[in-house]
Amino acid sequence: MGVSVVILALDGTNRADARPTLRIPLVRRIRQPFLGDWALPGSRLRQGISLEAAASDALLSTTGLDARYLEQLYTFGDPGRSSSGLPMVSIAYWALIDADEAQGVHEARNVQWFPLNALPSIAFDHRRIIDYALDRIRTKIGYTDIAARLVGETFTLSQLRRVYEAILDRTLDPPNFRRSILASGMIKPTGEVLARGRHRPAALYRYAAPGAPLSSPSKRHDGRRHDERHA
Amino acid sequence: MGVSVVILALDGTNRADARPTLRIPLVRRIRQPFLGDWALPGSRLRQGISLEAAASDALLSTTGLDARYLEQLYTFGDPGRSSSGLPMVSIAYWALIDADEAQGVHEARNVQWFPLNALPSIAFDHRRIIDYALDRIRTKIGYTDIAARLVGETFTLSQLRRVYEAILDRTLDPPNFRRSILASGMIKPTGEVLARGRHRPAALYRYAAPGAPLSSPSKRHDGRRHDERHA
Repeated sequence: MGVSVVILALDGTNRADARPTLRIPLVRRIRQPFLGDWALPGSRLRQGISLEAAASDALLSTTGLDARYLEQLYTFGDPGRSSSGLPMVSIAYWALIDADEAQGVHEARNVQWFPLNALPSIAFDHRRIIDYALDRIRTKIGYTDIAARLVGETFTLSQLRRVYEAILDRTLDPPNFRRSILASGMIKPTGEVLARGRHRPAALYRYAAPGAPLSSPSKRHDGRRHDERHA
Repeated sequence: MGVSVVILALDGTNRADARPTLRIPLVRRIRQPFLGDWALPGSRLRQGISLEAAASDALLSTTGLDARYLEQLYTFGDPGRSSSGLPMVSIAYWALIDADEAQGVHEARNVQWFPLNALPSIAFDHRRIIDYALDRIRTKIGYTDIAARLVGETFTLSQLRRVYEAILDRTLDPPNFRRSILASGMIKPTGEVLARGRHRPAALYRYAAPGAPLSSPSKRHDGRRHDERHA
């Protein structure tokens, strides 16, 4: 039984000419089983260590980042996972890292970052966990401000569209995206513009306070941001 | 390590004169620790049994209902939970049961249903798990069709308001609720009306297809309904 952490970072958001890429750090297995394959960063549960602390250790040792990026994603376990017959349980966490933070991340020993569309041979059932995380983020960008964690607090429509394109892994039509995202009411203009190079200055936006119109104000359970809405 | 199941049912939706009540079944502890206290239905992980199957067993033995109501809620574990020092991990599932189904539920041995505003002394950290489930449902009714699982597929605005009131544990102003829920676009009229007794017939509504306007069509991971959006 242990925790596994899916860390997603967006690479290349500052390039205007190419779609940014979602990347994930994996750890090379240096023992059996799955020797030489790549696994999610993680750690076994140990005496006196909470689930959150175990996940936080794995995130820190892989990226140097702290626990405030972590959320529990899902717990995986089935009878087939372990040779002992008892279910092997992985409590999966995920962390979405914005581009600037990811740029400062150095590669640790046995850790390598892979683009999600070119993953190596994956150990255990970790491919399933990665796919689950991708599916979750693809669903959640439609109704939460989760993309803001990858693109930053303020962004142009074109920057946001590129984040959507990277997450959905397909090209979006700019006028359609603009109309659709503005109609959703999810984002609002900051009143500022971004001027860059010879381009026409572009209006900056931010996510509006996420609306849960008829529910009570949500409490946070454990101080992590967005815990409830994204958990 | 085991699974625990939070089963929420709405009682009294057919009475026009009183707010319905959220109720939960609990199991009386017949051994130490917490002898005589009340715990969530659950089971320990066993050889050859998946997490889902363990949760499904607990739901079935408590309510006679099958696994299609179950979703994983959250995994709880901290160093303080076990005397052994190793984290005691509870993988919590929840099931939202609609009123008609709950009416057919008989009380099993050592199982008793409690209104959520009058819970008995709760064993382990199960109170925290119940509170987490309540907090989750209070957040989710604002942006998902989760209430439909308690009120049924079609409903009048007044029936839906009572479900909201039961979940939020407070009275809502009918005209405000009507305006707010209709403006949200979350529900749409079915074109039919409900005529009951001497009351004026009331229009019936259903939840519109939940909108995730810019995300890709969501896949289901394991065949359970709404798994992703509600997990």
